[in-house]
Amino acid sequence: MAGSTFGKVYRVTTWGESHGKALGAVVDGCPAGVPLTEEDIQSYLDRRKPGQSKATTARKEADRCEILSGVFDGKTTGTPISVLVWNGDQHSKDYSNIAHVYRPGHADYTFQEKYGIRDYRGGGRSSGRETIGRVIGGAIAMQVLKEFGISFTCYAKSIGPVVAENVDPVYISKNPFCLPDPNVVERAQSYLDACMERKDSIGGVIECRVDGLPVGLGEPVFDKLDALLGQAVMSIGAIKGFEVGDGFQSSLLHGSQDNDGFYMDGDEVKKSSNHSGGTLGGMSDGGQLVFRAAVKPTPSIAQAQQTVDDQGNDTLIVIHGRHDPIIVPRAVVVVESMAAITILDLMMQNASSQVDALKNFYKK
Amino acid sequence: MAGSTFGKVYRVTTWGESHGKALGAVVDGCPAGVPLTEEDIQSYLDRRKPGQSKATTARKEADRCEILSGVFDGKTTGTPISVLVWNGDQHSKDYSNIAHVYRPGHADYTFQEKYGIRDYRGGGRSSGRETIGRVIGGAIAMQVLKEFGISFTCYAKSIGPVVAENVDPVYISKNPFCLPDPNVVERAQSYLDACMERKDSIGGVIECRVDGLPVGLGEPVFDKLDALLGQAVMSIGAIKGFEVGDGFQSSLLHGSQDNDGFYMDGDEVKKSSNHSGGTLGGMSDGGQLVFRAAVKPTPSIAQAQQTVDDQGNDTLIVIHGRHDPIIVPRAVVVVESMAAITILDLMMQNASSQVDALKNFYKK
Amino acid sequence: MAGSTFGKVYRVTTWGESHGKALGAVVDGCPAGVPLTEEDIQSYLDRRKPGQSKATTARKEADRCEILSGVFDGKTTGTPISVLVWNGDQHSKDYSNIAHVYRPGHADYTFQEKYGIRDYRGGGRSSGRETIGRVIGGAIAMQVLKEFGISFTCYAKSIGPVVAENVDPVYISKNPFCLPDPNVVERAQSYLDACMERKDSIGGVIECRVDGLPVGLGEPVFDKLDALLGQAVMSIGAIKGFEVGDGFQSSLLHGSQDNDGFYMDGDEVKKSSNHSGGTLGGMSDGGQLVFRAAVKPTPSIAQAQQTVDDQGNDTLIVIHGRHDPIIVPRAVVVVESMAAITILDLMMQNASSQVDALKNFYKK
Amino acid sequence: MAGSTFGKVYRVTTWGESHGKALGAVVDGCPAGVPLTEEDIQSYLDRRKPGQSKATTARKEADRCEILSGVFDGKTTGTPISVLVWNGDQHSKDYSNIAHVYRPGHADYTFQEKYGIRDYRGGGRSSGRETIGRVIGGAIAMQVLKEFGISFTCYAKSIGPVVAENVDPVYISKNPFCLPDPNVVERAQSYLDACMERKDSIGGVIECRVDGLPVGLGEPVFDKLDALLGQAVMSIGAIKGFEVGDGFQSSLLHGSQDNDGFYMDGDEVKKSSNHSGGTLGGMSDGGQLVFRAAVKPTPSIAQAQQTVDDQGNDTLIVIHGRHDPIIVPRAVVVVESMAAITILDLMMQNASSQVDALKNFYKK
Repeated sequence: MAGSTFGKVYRVTTWGESHGKALGAVVDGCPAGVPLTEEDIQSYLDRRKPGQSKATTARKEADRCEILSGVFDGKTTGTPISVLVWNGDQHSKDYSNIAHVYRPGHADYTFQEKYGIRDYRGGGRSSGRETIGRVIGGAIAMQVLKEFGISFTCYAKSIGPVVAENVDPVYISKNPFCLPDPNVVERAQSYLDACMERKDSIGGVIECRVDGLPVGLGEPVFDKLDALLGQAVMSIGAIKGFEVGDGFQSSLLHGSQDNDGFYMDGDEVKKSSNHSGGTLGGMSDGGQLVFRAAVKPTPSIAQAQQTVDDQGNDTLIVIHGRHDPIIVPRAVVVVESMAAITILDLMMQNASSQVDALKNFYKK
Repeated sequence: MAGSTFGKVYRVTTWGESHGKALGAVVDGCPAGVPLTEEDIQSYLDRRKPGQSKATTARKEADRCEILSGVFDGKTTGTPISVLVWNGDQHSKDYSNIAHVYRPGHADYTFQEKYGIRDYRGGGRSSGRETIGRVIGGAIAMQVLKEFGISFTCYAKSIGPVVAENVDPVYISKNPFCLPDPNVVERAQSYLDACMERKDSIGGVIECRVDGLPVGLGEPVFDKLDALLGQAVMSIGAIKGFEVGDGFQSSLLHGSQDNDGFYMDGDEVKKSSNHSGGTLGGMSDGGQLVFRAAVKPTPSIAQAQQTVDDQGNDTLIVIHGRHDPIIVPRAVVVVESMAAITILDLMMQNASSQVDALKNFYKK
Repeated sequence: MAGSTFGKVYRVTTWGESHGKALGAVVDGCPAGVPLTEEDIQSYLDRRKPGQSKATTARKEADRCEILSGVFDGKTTGTPISVLVWNGDQHSKDYSNIAHVYRPGHADYTFQEKYGIRDYRGGGRSSGRETIGRVIGGAIAMQVLKEFGISFTCYAKSIGPVVAENVDPVYISKNPFCLPDPNVVERAQSYLDACMERKDSIGGVIECRVDGLPVGLGEPVFDKLDALLGQAVMSIGAIKGFEVGDGFQSSLLHGSQDNDGFYMDGDEVKKSSNHSGGTLGGMSDGGQLVFRAAVKPTPSIAQAQQTVDDQGNDTLIVIHGRHDPIIVPRAVVVVESMAAITILDLMMQNASSQVDALKNFYKK
Repeated sequence: MAGSTFGKVYRVTTWGESHGKALGAVVDGCPAGVPLTEEDIQSYLDRRKPGQSKATTARKEADRCEILSGVFDGKTTGTPISVLVWNGDQHSKDYSNIAHVYRPGHADYTFQEKYGIRDYRGGGRSSGRETIGRVIGGAIAMQVLKEFGISFTCYAKSIGPVVAENVDPVYISKNPFCLPDPNVVERAQSYLDACMERKDSIGGVIECRVDGLPVGLGEPVFDKLDALLGQAVMSIGAIKGFEVGDGFQSSLLHGSQDNDGFYMDGDEVKKSSNHSGGTLGGMSDGGQLVFRAAVKPTPSIAQAQQTVDDQGNDTLIVIHGRHDPIIVPRAVVVVESMAAITILDLMMQNASSQVDALKNFYKK
């Protein structure tokens, strides 16, 4: 059944395979009147491109986006925004050895079983290139959220066992790992180098902080802010865990430690701590939204691995080609994008929660 | 916006407040021809009832369910199944002290801000009693899943710092914590006793294992099995984290450790390990589905806490009444229920993935 | 698949069979802060009750509604509103003769084929009693729409061949046919009497006019106002046709006749005619919304009819019991209810169409 | 709110404006394993192209489609199928005179009011070119439905007052009006010529017949086959009415006339007539599905018309350019497409209605 659309009001539908003609997204329900150019989207797409560093694959991907509809005179019109990225000249023959063999840790086997057919070139629909559509949807959402003063800080919290201790937002874009802590980059690099030497890969954790959210975003009971963020983030390939605020750590705390007290700061209700990570009862509580995603190690490794083929024979596979030894740095903007889509969708949903607000709207 | 429905094909809509007249669920899209009685549902509801042990509140809740529609001659008819549980005589006056004061760690403040009005009696819609509707939906889903040989093992993985080392499924229902490991129950009880002595509460972790799933459940890319489980589980009050398979631990692993090799076992494709927790590319991979949920400590504690009232004054609150010092034991069946709903929904969605299967269906 | 929910933001889920324990609806997404009592709903339910006139069945249905959730201190809280109507003592044995025989013009055969089982008592889910849930949802929607000065005039446009020429809104509730024209009631009655004498039934047309709609309701391209009204109205049992404005008549007109010119009336844009029936491009255009629904004759007639049983035998059926010889009068409030649900849903959807409106909302 | 997607399982999302870069559709949820080429889609797109006859505009539109994703080795893969049609060199300047003036009978005014901005070039999103996306979705659905032996006969039932009396399916594609009756084409042409002489336009009626449907398609109560067809057809621009079977005529019939009797034809249940048009209780009943759509006259006429501009001034408008004097012939394939989308969606939904069918599926 159709699972390529996310959101109820701000709806992002993505399409495209790794080695098909193109990939893209259709964004339906974007509010009208928002300034939007291809450059606005491109700047986000560039963040997921493989770079020159050793942490990311050496493949060259231009990934220039084209807006095909929904924008007029530089502004969104309320009609669906279709954005496309052509797939360049990618070497399909590189992948011929995996046409009939299931790569461990990949979706080859499950796609084949579910559909009875799969585009095996570069992973097809399960390729990391699928996230291009997510970033398009996220970049447009960001363009809207900017108008409300909502801002995101998203980064690598850890690279394997190397954990960022400090968060310097300015530093995130200045190192190949998207680490926010200058003190640990060298250690991360050494760790990764040793790992690559062994033809192996490594995982990590991505953390995201969102400032400026109004109170009350999230729809009880199933469409809570944390629930929809959970779906949004867990839907990204290679993500194996999700937590908000103290997350798994809260299982070890007492109520007296975990509860955030309220106090008045002038007219404003504030919290004296933020163990909740910015949500109470599944709605934004005025605190900073904080969540983390666990990223598994890249499954494509150059070591021989035990597997089977689609004729039911045991076999070995060695995956060639250039692959990121760690997914984290390029996934940071994907996590941020999914958060932006989720939040904008809930902001729009929230607009008709009270009849008085609706009356104000129609009074104009 | 409406957030009280979960699922696309098997759809569960829940309703009801802690101290309203009743709570319930409407299950739409359940396949016709499934045997279903009130006792089938009641046996699940009984698992979320407060017990006699010190781990759960001493409140008495009868919580007898009534099936009002959708069942005829002992079988589901394909029409919506409406199930209701009356709220008994609950002492509304007990809660008058929280009518205008926001309890830390609760949804009082966010509900008030979002809607401008809230049913403050017992937490209203954000009460744990809201999960009655989820368990109704889960119990009916279980009744269907049984026909496919799919079974669930769900239990407390940890009570605060006390972790179950072994899993003995039979033992789970024989201790007040739903722990699967006889060796740690006494330690859990001592820990909780000490905690209650200090008028404090504690968190924990719930683990769920599902056996017998067909390969290929989950809809790429946003409605992956892990993504929808993520939403389902994170939507339960007090859950702060979710992970599948190795989860957060996988962030520390190498690809060579985390990848599960495939091998042939006769005609069947099997995996030599299950780091993935039973999903690849967001679809069930034939392995056991394994996931965990982090539960925060009960926010209702009998200590004085700093907070504010709805007039903007700083104040202290002491929460009276009987509250579970730990949510985990009663939440086990809720987690299991949400998993059952998610899996049945995806099983039904999956039925039209291939045109040949659809042709078989209409050939009948 | 689940088809018992209508609406995207204002969502009405109905449940219940003719002779089950109860029928009802869950309304999710209703804005908070709307005054609502059981009497508000009851006054609409009473309009669909069979009366004393010969035009409607002599069965006695009390149909008292109970609000079970979602209302606190006399106002909606934004949480789901569950409303229930108990089924009284209805003579199940009356229907035993149709347990295994398919009534012509009814849904017996299609329900049995689709689901392999059906609640045959009184038509089960396909009974006219199913509309109780629709009227509940409509009555609550009306309660919201009243706050915006939106009003409905819905009536029988024709009873068989007897057509109302004038519309006197006050008269509609004063005759058993819901005709708006005193001059034709006697003729309608004579026509119906003759028809009942022959143990036959008759159809008719319902017309609905809505005043006070803001411009711009309806979501291009598939969720246009006329498209969703089309679904809403065609989903009512016995409705076989739907048209807006000039409707089928417009197929005979020229553009120069059918186009409505615009002109300024002070500051306001007005139309010099209303052939469109109040929609342009699928959005409300500021004119009065006008639509019609064609109602087929009651299929339950006391004449012997040719049919088959569920064992594949040809047979005759004579339907006993008391049945409305015409559905129109009782369906008027159902059509009105579906229109109210559709319009409120689109009003809420529309609230986030422009980014400036959304910014105003969050400025508060 | 997002209204550019139709269907629940087979989901068609359309995008694009008349004079934007391109138009297209993303089809998500199409079953895997269906043969599909660009030519399969092109043959349907060609049917909506303006021809050489006087009945359709003389504009030249190449409208070649490109499949960008979702097809591999000539078969659908179950992933979203993205199809695009580039907009050729269309003379934007032709439309400059309508930038600030609202055309009567068009959506200019309502789009401007709803969104505060509109792409006025050629009607933007409300242009007839929007239907390209619908035909793409319909052509792909047809490709699936062919595998089930389901076939469509769709044609002009009437051109203004000229009504087809006979239906010769072969003849439909052999005349510029898509009339199925050779005897009335000349009369239709004369009528249209006279109308064009007066710089005027004309409406008509489209009729569609579908053979080979299995019994039981349609989901009670809101997603009935006729209800969803109603939405699907009414969502097409210029459609003002919809009816199934006897439709509005049934309002004049008696139950004894309108009911279709059942009889056994060997093992098969058959109906002795088809007043219902192939649906009972909103589900396909084994008879031929028959429905009609009323098409209003083309609103673009070359006569001067009274209107207003976006500054609130009264003014006259004369619409230049080449416009179809009648929409019917080109809308035939659009109506057929929306029917195909609706039916395939319901066929897929229906596949999990009974637990036994689901068990068969998973037994494989």
